Amino acid sequence: MPGTYEQEQTQKAIGWAALDSSGILSPFHFTRRANGDNDITMKILYCGICHSDLHMTTNEFGISSYPMIPGCQDNLENYCTKSTYTFTFFEGAEEEKNYGGFSDIVVVNEHFAIRFPDSLSPEGGAPLLCGGITVYSPMKYFGLNEAGKHLGVVGLGGLGHLAVKFAKAFGMKVTVISTSPNKKEEAIGRLGADSFLVSSDTMEMQAAMNTMDGILDTVSAPHPLNPLIGLLKCNGKLILLGATDLEKPVDLPIVPLLVGRKLIAGSNSGGLKETQEMIDFAGKHNIVADVEVIPMDYVNTAMKRLAKGDIRYRFVIDIGNTLMT
Amino acid sequence: MPGTYEQEQTQKAIGWAALDSSGILSPFHFTRRANGDNDITMKILYCGICHSDLHMTTNEFGISSYPMIPGCQDNLENYCTKSTYTFTFFEGAEEEKNYGGFSDIVVVNEHFAIRFPDSLSPEGGAPLLCGGITVYSPMKYFGLNEAGKHLGVVGLGGLGHLAVKFAKAFGMKVTVISTSPNKKEEAIGRLGADSFLVSSDTMEMQAAMNTMDGILDTVSAPHPLNPLIGLLKCNGKLILLGATDLEKPVDLPIVPLLVGRKLIAGSNSGGLKETQEMIDFAGKHNIVADVEVIPMDYVNTAMKRLAKGDIRYRFVIDIGNTLMT
Repeated sequence: MPGTYEQEQTQKAIGWAALDSSGILSPFHFTRRANGDNDITMKILYCGICHSDLHMTTNEFGISSYPMIPGCQDNLENYCTKSTYTFTFFEGAEEEKNYGGFSDIVVVNEHFAIRFPDSLSPEGGAPLLCGGITVYSPMKYFGLNEAGKHLGVVGLGGLGHLAVKFAKAFGMKVTVISTSPNKKEEAIGRLGADSFLVSSDTMEMQAAMNTMDGILDTVSAPHPLNPLIGLLKCNGKLILLGATDLEKPVDLPIVPLLVGRKLIAGSNSGGLKETQEMIDFAGKHNIVADVEVIPMDYVNTAMKRLAKGDIRYRFVIDIGNTLMT
Repeated sequence: MPGTYEQEQTQKAIGWAALDSSGILSPFHFTRRANGDNDITMKILYCGICHSDLHMTTNEFGISSYPMIPGCQDNLENYCTKSTYTFTFFEGAEEEKNYGGFSDIVVVNEHFAIRFPDSLSPEGGAPLLCGGITVYSPMKYFGLNEAGKHLGVVGLGGLGHLAVKFAKAFGMKVTVISTSPNKKEEAIGRLGADSFLVSSDTMEMQAAMNTMDGILDTVSAPHPLNPLIGLLKCNGKLILLGATDLEKPVDLPIVPLLVGRKLIAGSNSGGLKETQEMIDFAGKHNIVADVEVIPMDYVNTAMKRLAKGDIRYRFVIDIGNTLMT
């Protein structure tokens, strides 16, 4: 991508930035680079808020630099050992300084732009570029996208509710596993899951042992893996999507893995080709995230609510209509 | 398999059995079933001693029943949740009471018999039916059998030395990882590994990070997994083959799995079809285990030496020539 980094910063932009690790966002004027050979400038209409945005604005991983404009942060060439951390957006991505999608425009190499299906609502589709690909990519990579297979989904939040929707669109049997019995009606009645397990109910969990081909575990708080491994059939796959505290490894029981040739893996996001495939699949099957659309100046309140899990299931900022007001 | 269990016990046999959890073996007269419709009676010539035999004769897993005749114990339909524990032998297997291969004859359904290649020495080939399939099966299942891929092998014992031999026959690059620097010459000079890492040498380990497509971890004592996960490339696979203490889970760091889409899995043994494929492959590539052939009455000493790891790399009992003397 010649010219990408050498371009002068000539395009004026406005966004909301965190200035320090308090994570509090406020309006911020800056510039984006002039368009290089393969660059395009895109207007941002909607931008989802991801848990990673919260991690990053408050410097939980110790790698944040300020001022920072968040917006579905991700590393796009995501499994390359030399990956540069970049930001994905509703309509694309860039690889410059960490000025993200909470802003009016973005300049990206056209390679990083995704074609968004006309059939999807932009506000409902926006979080798919982050949460959607995060559940879709491992389903595909680990063969957990086949009709008739039984998928467990641990945690019914931003990722979990999308996992249920994609799995049902693939024709799978879906069981939601949650600590909260009161999510049963939501899981089965509204999202279309086939069954529901309360993870603390040992009788229920015991009865469901050896029944699942795979599990997508979306919970980021540390939690025991052994009961989940028990739910898997032989050759079953437990895929971890929640980034737990770096300092706190979890207990891994070895023997159940050996006896049933089970595996535990991690996954994060997906590449651009797969992201395009995911959004096209979502367009075909009318999969959108359940979102709460908010104005730009509500973002700090939204971040606080996100930290408490008080959102069903994704905040999306109406950038186009509210950034400049 | 009609008739298998209902047959009268008419075939007189002799073996060496453990009578209690001391694990001490002594001569033991018993009977095997009359041949049912698809049964065959086989004469046992050689029988390898596996670490599992030691676990079982001393009732380490709490599931042993006595008298017990060991001999490459394994569950053959090994990934079926309703598996019956059975015993594999040099020349076959049975599914009755746990009278194993440390004996003169065995009665098996012909389904459980393996064709042994003429080109392999029987004493060197015998341990392949246990240790060989244990390393071959996961290499195949997890795609770690492709020429040019880089395989790490942790631990240079019965399983480890076979893993090196199979991996080299597949055309792979092989690195042995061991706690013992003095195994380097053995690993590279004699077994043909490409390189060697001392696991306690952090400089060496650091330099080898992100270089391996997969690792077969044959060590059964608890040990940290994080350094091994670090050796893997993105999408790398750490396969655990050593059964560690049931009560001692190991620490699993989550973030490195997520960042690199790495996986940790367990595997044990393999099915009959794959075992036949493995032994045919071994015959073609002249892969045998490095063995110390012992007479039957040396078995108790051998068990003690095995417990200390004092064997390079497998004991094989010369049943045919020494059982009756």
